[in-house]
Amino acid sequence: MKSNALIKAWKTISSSVVFEANPWLKIIQDTVELPNKRIVDDYYRIETQDYVLIYAKSNEGKVLVERQYKHGLGKTTITFPAGFIDKDEKPLHAAQRELLEETGFQARTWKHLGTFILDGTRNYGKAHYFIAEGLDYIAEPQKSDMEELEVSFLSIDELLSAIAQGELSLLPGISIMAIATNPLFEKLQKIIE
Amino acid sequence: MKSNALIKAWKTISSSVVFEANPWLKIIQDTVELPNKRIVDDYYRIETQDYVLIYAKSNEGKVLVERQYKHGLGKTTITFPAGFIDKDEKPLHAAQRELLEETGFQARTWKHLGTFILDGTRNYGKAHYFIAEGLDYIAEPQKSDMEELEVSFLSIDELLSAIAQGELSLLPGISIMAIATNPLFEKLQKIIE
Repeated sequence: MKSNALIKAWKTISSSVVFEANPWLKIIQDTVELPNKRIVDDYYRIETQDYVLIYAKSNEGKVLVERQYKHGLGKTTITFPAGFIDKDEKPLHAAQRELLEETGFQARTWKHLGTFILDGTRNYGKAHYFIAEGLDYIAEPQKSDMEELEVSFLSIDELLSAIAQGELSLLPGISIMAIATNPLFEKLQKIIE
Repeated sequence: MKSNALIKAWKTISSSVVFEANPWLKIIQDTVELPNKRIVDDYYRIETQDYVLIYAKSNEGKVLVERQYKHGLGKTTITFPAGFIDKDEKPLHAAQRELLEETGFQARTWKHLGTFILDGTRNYGKAHYFIAEGLDYIAEPQKSDMEELEVSFLSIDELLSAIAQGELSLLPGISIMAIATNPLFEKLQKIIE
């Protein structure tokens, strides 16, 4: 990659919170000065909680998925174990907690696949991706009326046909599967426990 | 996958727009009734413009990338050609327009990789992913002071090391690369032109 000498950062002149719904959502309006000195007074950023996403594999190579109603999407869809990180919680701990709470499984090996920003324009959503292996079922999943889940294991072929049929259309789930099963990305995986 | 008989949809009782910054952003607050009849009056959804993202490959297997300052992220980063879809515009047309505007390239073959939702909880952001091949440089890129770009071609190895070094951390770019280079996902690609 060439140097980025040509690409200048913007200067933030002022920022104000224009909408807030704690702890879910905060909209921040920035006034910025561009490199050519032009002032733009309506650049919006969105603050949300960081979250974890887990690709949990059985010894047979099947993947732990959830079927749940997603109100944003307005329908039932296939998702992967996931959840918001609590205040002061480490991402790995959040991943272990969410996997156990949502599915009842504990994993013996955890790998960090990467930490990604969903939208760099608005800085919306930071996601920590993990692979969990060596699964043991140790507890009943916790019930939540906001998150009714049906937990099951799907093969890779079943996941691919779910994508083709639109039953799995959320980018986080599709991307964790695409990264976890892509030989090119293997050297980026880091075993952390 | 088992039937989803257990998973019930929520009922929307009312919706109101609680923040609006046209055409960028709209926050909608829903009052919903859960399957157990409990009422939740603060479910927030976010409406944004749909966008296109393009993985453009040279005959030598290199990938067309941009280096740009992303104010949401607060730094210069590697991105892929992308842009919002104009009102009444077809996603393929938006992809062809954005590729030409941002990089000066036209592609002879287009494949649709899939259409994905960034966040199913808030219904944030719908992205149409394309692979473009057979590239011809036919015009000077259009300049925009909101989007200063440095265009170049990177090899897959260079892209992987950019991810390892944090120079490519945005999920859309990483996920389009992970899907486009994943042999499992090949049968999901559809040649559209």
